[in-house]
Amino acid sequence: MTLTLQDAPVVAPESVLDQLRAAVGARNVVTGASELAPRLVEDRGLFRGTASAEIRPGTTEEVAACLRICTSAGVPVVPQGGNTGLVGGGVPYGGVILTTGRLNQVRDIDPINATMTVEAGCILAQVQAEADRIGKLFPLSLASEGSCQIGGNLATNAGGTAVLRYGNTRDLVLGLEVALPDGQILRDLNGLRKNNTGYDLKNLFIGAEGTLGVITAAVIKLFPKTVSRATALVACGGPHHALALYDRLRTRHGDILSTFEYLERLGLEMSLAHSPGTSDPMAQAYPAYALVELATSDSEADIGPRLEAVLADALEAEEILDAVIGASESQRDALWAMRENMSEAQKSYGASIKHDVAVPVAQVADFLTEAVAAVRAHVPNLRPCPFGHFGDGNIHFNLTRPVDMSDADFLGEYDALNRIVHDIVVKMGGSFSAEHGVGLAKRGELRRYRDPVALQLMQQIKDALDPHGLMNPGKVL
Amino acid sequence: MTLTLQDAPVVAPESVLDQLRAAVGARNVVTGASELAPRLVEDRGLFRGTASAEIRPGTTEEVAACLRICTSAGVPVVPQGGNTGLVGGGVPYGGVILTTGRLNQVRDIDPINATMTVEAGCILAQVQAEADRIGKLFPLSLASEGSCQIGGNLATNAGGTAVLRYGNTRDLVLGLEVALPDGQILRDLNGLRKNNTGYDLKNLFIGAEGTLGVITAAVIKLFPKTVSRATALVACGGPHHALALYDRLRTRHGDILSTFEYLERLGLEMSLAHSPGTSDPMAQAYPAYALVELATSDSEADIGPRLEAVLADALEAEEILDAVIGASESQRDALWAMRENMSEAQKSYGASIKHDVAVPVAQVADFLTEAVAAVRAHVPNLRPCPFGHFGDGNIHFNLTRPVDMSDADFLGEYDALNRIVHDIVVKMGGSFSAEHGVGLAKRGELRRYRDPVALQLMQQIKDALDPHGLMNPGKVL
Repeated sequence: MTLTLQDAPVVAPESVLDQLRAAVGARNVVTGASELAPRLVEDRGLFRGTASAEIRPGTTEEVAACLRICTSAGVPVVPQGGNTGLVGGGVPYGGVILTTGRLNQVRDIDPINATMTVEAGCILAQVQAEADRIGKLFPLSLASEGSCQIGGNLATNAGGTAVLRYGNTRDLVLGLEVALPDGQILRDLNGLRKNNTGYDLKNLFIGAEGTLGVITAAVIKLFPKTVSRATALVACGGPHHALALYDRLRTRHGDILSTFEYLERLGLEMSLAHSPGTSDPMAQAYPAYALVELATSDSEADIGPRLEAVLADALEAEEILDAVIGASESQRDALWAMRENMSEAQKSYGASIKHDVAVPVAQVADFLTEAVAAVRAHVPNLRPCPFGHFGDGNIHFNLTRPVDMSDADFLGEYDALNRIVHDIVVKMGGSFSAEHGVGLAKRGELRRYRDPVALQLMQQIKDALDPHGLMNPGKVL
Repeated sequence: MTLTLQDAPVVAPESVLDQLRAAVGARNVVTGASELAPRLVEDRGLFRGTASAEIRPGTTEEVAACLRICTSAGVPVVPQGGNTGLVGGGVPYGGVILTTGRLNQVRDIDPINATMTVEAGCILAQVQAEADRIGKLFPLSLASEGSCQIGGNLATNAGGTAVLRYGNTRDLVLGLEVALPDGQILRDLNGLRKNNTGYDLKNLFIGAEGTLGVITAAVIKLFPKTVSRATALVACGGPHHALALYDRLRTRHGDILSTFEYLERLGLEMSLAHSPGTSDPMAQAYPAYALVELATSDSEADIGPRLEAVLADALEAEEILDAVIGASESQRDALWAMRENMSEAQKSYGASIKHDVAVPVAQVADFLTEAVAAVRAHVPNLRPCPFGHFGDGNIHFNLTRPVDMSDADFLGEYDALNRIVHDIVVKMGGSFSAEHGVGLAKRGELRRYRDPVALQLMQQIKDALDPHGLMNPGKVL
């Protein structure tokens, strides 16, 4: 997909590039085609754009200076972190790309306040490791954590596997520093748990996908490190049974329930086939599985037996059919791998059409039932591989092409299947983008499904904060 | 304190009142002086205003119609819930008061999604009771819960005693319905745990104190009901010891730590003297006390012994000097009462000057030490009664007049003491309003202490959403 707006992409004049060179140093303004190339396309090659240069500021002040220069000259700016986004939000349409990789300092760690002040370009895995080093946990965790940057996580309000226990990225942030389109800097790096002094600006920039300014640093929350965990793969008859199990676990162990992920038989088989040396830990095949985990910072909480007890109750209530508890760290890792390898494993089965949707948790089983039936009615023999963050109501509703259909023919059904799935989601009060954002890929869906009054408010805010429309143009709105 | 703006207060013309009568029914437009009187002044009599009428819409559509009528006529609107705010945010300056008391329906309860859809006028205690009725917990809890309305809690992002475990009010909200100044309605009553579809409008209205629109309904989060709790009053040598205890409890029992409140000896004595039949549960007097509680939804978690064990460790480490564990429900209630009666008890000791401040938790002990010394240097013999939400870094830094000073003389030091305290708070990276908001009382502090760029952004948002400045004028900005 190529980004196409009404106007032709803006080419940054050489005079502007010279000003940018003066601001950040000549070697931090990259214009060579081969160096620029990886910044113009996202990982999977789905979205491509053009840009005159990549600008690599090294400080917040340099970011602000770049924005001032570009705004004065009418040159669009596309902020980019690790370029791992899945909706084309970092793909440029002319102008310049501003990358945050050189803003990679951990400015402060406060163990007692349980906070860390990080610059936008810190790799997520690095942030996790820094927290771990002082005996704390930064819970945000997602597939691209080895290369994504915290600034991108903030700009997209990233989700992942720890939302059930710790919330979305926005819930992990206390303070923010933002370079604004006009070159001013919002300095609000507070580490406060309570602060009712005016409008909540922080949450406006978090999740705005770089369309209102560039997040340059943040104060993030740390948590007590998990020292004890109990993990089980649980087999059940289908999503409605999984929902009953979820409700049971949350009601009794809501304090320490850290994971409730879901996958179905086909997904498990794909995952096993993809990973040599792995095997089904259960003696027979079941329709659906939940990966559940209890975790605590109390080394004496003895949670293994507590997990066994609640699963025994669920077995007796006929909510579940079988369960395997990971007795060692390596067994736990093996159970997690079945879930984590799913997305990668799916690739070898041919083209797939994916949806990142959420419904109220109470509707998640109904959604799975209705949506599977509906897409099967449209493309007989397609292979649904739904999986994901069941406890958040967030399903990656992935569809693999039928065995006997070409990739191209299947991908021809992209829009039709999107419409079927998203219509069901929205009918159930759900979201067509649970954690990946809007970017370029879902702008049309935003216009179709969101309340027009909400869209109007967003546009008013965009116009107020970025009156010339130069921040990541063509994304979100 | 009387609200005074540059312009004279607007008197709503009779023609506008007639339009409002047509919109909400004649008996829901109250103009009689005696009926109107309690709406013009806040509880303690500190803030007084004027208004032409109280309008009592009964539906969201009626709220919207009232706003459309008033905006067209240039008549200011001051939204008011239970009128329990502490910073004059609901005090009118001309125009009309729009009260939400008739919007008092619980529209929906979903036990599996763990959400409730409530209208703005629901009393907080009623919301708590509805949640309890289906075996859930709505954790927001504060002194005025018997009369404050959830809409006001949302508009002010209320704090209270459960923030440590469950977050501020904004963290308890999933979806929102808002009547906008121009009479449009933002309908976003979603019950989703994840939803990345554009800017976060919800958090803009939460905490805006009615200056951007009127929140008419919300989807709020429910939690598993607490079925087991262990409560202790712990004595220690001062705030630094309390901080060490807090860190120990959070590190080990962060999952189930639900309370860490603080008070000092003078406060405890006031509280005991205020409540006949109560007595100091410890054999001797200590400088400072923490009220701590572990709570869980797991009836078999056996948390009493776990609390005893961690307190024994703290005693051995000489962080604490004594502890009393509430063995029965009535003993627990008695320990809580010592903390909860403090504010009321203080009244009989003469005039007091109060501060609702927050610092990073790591600074809270330093703040108490430095601020007490500073205010004592300014008014020798004043009696500091700091107490509050220590675990959130939020201290109600209350100062009672010296025994031998008149109320009037002491209150003459109001501004000077505010300045001393707030300067220390802000130097430590703190907030001059942790949970009470800005309203009328702290507008000056907002201008003095907040980053000018933040103020400018707030004003841009205000101008974009309420271009005629008719929503609760003179508050916040």
